[in-house]
Amino acid sequence: MTITSFYPPQRTLMGPGPSDIYPQVLQALSRPTIGHLDPLFVGMMDELKQLLQYAFQTKNTFTIAVSAPGSAGMEACFVNLVEPGDKVIVCRNGVFGDRMRENVERCGGKAVVVDNTWGEPVDPLLVEQALIDNPDAKVLAFVHAETSTGALSDAEALAKLARQHDCLTIVDAVTSLGGVPLLVDEWQLDAVYSGSQKCLSCVPGLSPLTFSQRAIDKIQARKTPVQSWFLDQSLVLGYWSGEGKRTYHHTAPVNSLYALHEALVLLQNEGLENAWQRHKDAHLELREGLEKLGITFVVDEASRLPQLNAVYIPDGVDDALVRKKLLERYNLEIGAGLGALGGKAWRIGLMGYAARSENVALCLKALESTLK
Amino acid sequence: MTITSFYPPQRTLMGPGPSDIYPQVLQALSRPTIGHLDPLFVGMMDELKQLLQYAFQTKNTFTIAVSAPGSAGMEACFVNLVEPGDKVIVCRNGVFGDRMRENVERCGGKAVVVDNTWGEPVDPLLVEQALIDNPDAKVLAFVHAETSTGALSDAEALAKLARQHDCLTIVDAVTSLGGVPLLVDEWQLDAVYSGSQKCLSCVPGLSPLTFSQRAIDKIQARKTPVQSWFLDQSLVLGYWSGEGKRTYHHTAPVNSLYALHEALVLLQNEGLENAWQRHKDAHLELREGLEKLGITFVVDEASRLPQLNAVYIPDGVDDALVRKKLLERYNLEIGAGLGALGGKAWRIGLMGYAARSENVALCLKALESTLK
Repeated sequence: MTITSFYPPQRTLMGPGPSDIYPQVLQALSRPTIGHLDPLFVGMMDELKQLLQYAFQTKNTFTIAVSAPGSAGMEACFVNLVEPGDKVIVCRNGVFGDRMRENVERCGGKAVVVDNTWGEPVDPLLVEQALIDNPDAKVLAFVHAETSTGALSDAEALAKLARQHDCLTIVDAVTSLGGVPLLVDEWQLDAVYSGSQKCLSCVPGLSPLTFSQRAIDKIQARKTPVQSWFLDQSLVLGYWSGEGKRTYHHTAPVNSLYALHEALVLLQNEGLENAWQRHKDAHLELREGLEKLGITFVVDEASRLPQLNAVYIPDGVDDALVRKKLLERYNLEIGAGLGALGGKAWRIGLMGYAARSENVALCLKALESTLK
Repeated sequence: MTITSFYPPQRTLMGPGPSDIYPQVLQALSRPTIGHLDPLFVGMMDELKQLLQYAFQTKNTFTIAVSAPGSAGMEACFVNLVEPGDKVIVCRNGVFGDRMRENVERCGGKAVVVDNTWGEPVDPLLVEQALIDNPDAKVLAFVHAETSTGALSDAEALAKLARQHDCLTIVDAVTSLGGVPLLVDEWQLDAVYSGSQKCLSCVPGLSPLTFSQRAIDKIQARKTPVQSWFLDQSLVLGYWSGEGKRTYHHTAPVNSLYALHEALVLLQNEGLENAWQRHKDAHLELREGLEKLGITFVVDEASRLPQLNAVYIPDGVDDALVRKKLLERYNLEIGAGLGALGGKAWRIGLMGYAARSENVALCLKALESTLK
């Protein structure tokens, strides 16, 4: 049997990611591959670091893109910052908080889980109590924007509590980066990872990552080697470092990094504040339309993510059938519920390039027609 | 300061990888992104699995691409197949054998290193002795085609020894896949990983991987969880499995997988044997020309890799200056020496799309002019 080239259709991606990709990013992706140690490539990486610093609002020297998806970015934080026996307080208000717990345990750490209701933000009072009850905790880990529920937590307040109790913070900003305010330096976050395929509207496969000096200090004081060679950031730093000669670690995903560079140039040109506002505006348009259709939100208005709208599937509606019709008739992808919200909710993404009036209009009209 | 789009030059890539990319692969890379759970994408992944099975010459059900570079493919083998306390015999005849040792130790395994001279293949007699001396060894790990030296080892013979001593094999086929015969089933190899950016001439960032049933059995009999969540192949399998519903694990690098699919379609259309022959032919052309220039090979003819030609830098020649001139004047990249061969050798790659007469001609003429 002979297999032929694959030609995907042109979808409109309004699920939990990948989001619609900027056309300029797809163009950048297919530019000629050059060597990963080519001086011109090294120069591009230096720019990429600056662009990531802007996106994260940080001056952290250690600001890179992990050569793998956001899950690997998460793991990079845990394997570098958690040593066997370390106690980590993990806030769980959705799927990704639980993945953090998995990571802690696989590093030989001890996870103390603070459970919050799915669809609600992490409760700082519960976190404070856990910090008081566990004075030996070394790290507080939480998800800024829960992709599984659409809830935004108060990263600034949680990080402040962590500092008061002498804990480092590991923060999942996969869905927040570029979509809502995320101020790494001002909020004094320590280890923050994200994904390329959400509000940056780049192709999936890379994980922006930044470590504060406090995080670096903890890594340098480790008594045990990092259990992952691929994710050992002290080795990776030798490659990303701007000072003098690069040390080969692994072969960088050259073309994907072109794409991320382009996505971040677009973000820089738009301006972070404008991007945040655009996500908010699109969300308000979507909300208005959904309310007219009688569709309600999972998350309270105060902690609702503009870029990820989890909404209850109306009674009597066939979840899978509606999503199938949207895909087949309108080439429109919206997301299924995940974990506890599976079969109960849809996740409508307005991320990056998808946060536009034309997307909102298509989604509302297609939903209206399909739900009739 | 405003950063602008990055436009790389058109290089000819004749280093140790990334190699020249097929134009069709770059085109495929920039096709519209669709969701990683889209039924059409799932169908593409099923095809990709079949194409990888062809490239690896295996019927292994577990044949996938790891969503990260070859180094992560290596780590995927070790973290899944090595449990704390397991003894692993590691053959070291270059940089990547030593990286295998690192992996064993970071998994809590005990590495028994069999050292071979750099530039020579792994000696089966030394391996046999190590297997006899270590009857409790569980795994034999070796590099099929050492990218740091250009030496090809006899994977079939080494795997046979391993079976005789009841060991599984972990085989680095990063540089061999698609360039020289690699017969996973016939040679009964157990865990084999490769890279997308070598003889497949795809963009860097993915690691083809295949596990035999014996490897799967060992994974299923593990007493301890795999230390990496991202690389836990029992979880990854739920996503790549062709049977029924896919389970979300991480977001697949959609566009990179388009590119790998296209590269493998090209390999299928050419035919594996023809691809091997093309690499050999290009190598013979290059060899003839290099000999005329008085340049000698690091590796003996019998175990010389056609796709990676490690040659001694002629006496009195400035390594870095020559490579700089080749890059700046001819847009030609050849590789520097790595590890013990740093400053002593160049690595001239003839991988995938680069294994063509026009590349050989350019390289020879450019070297001749530059060395004058």
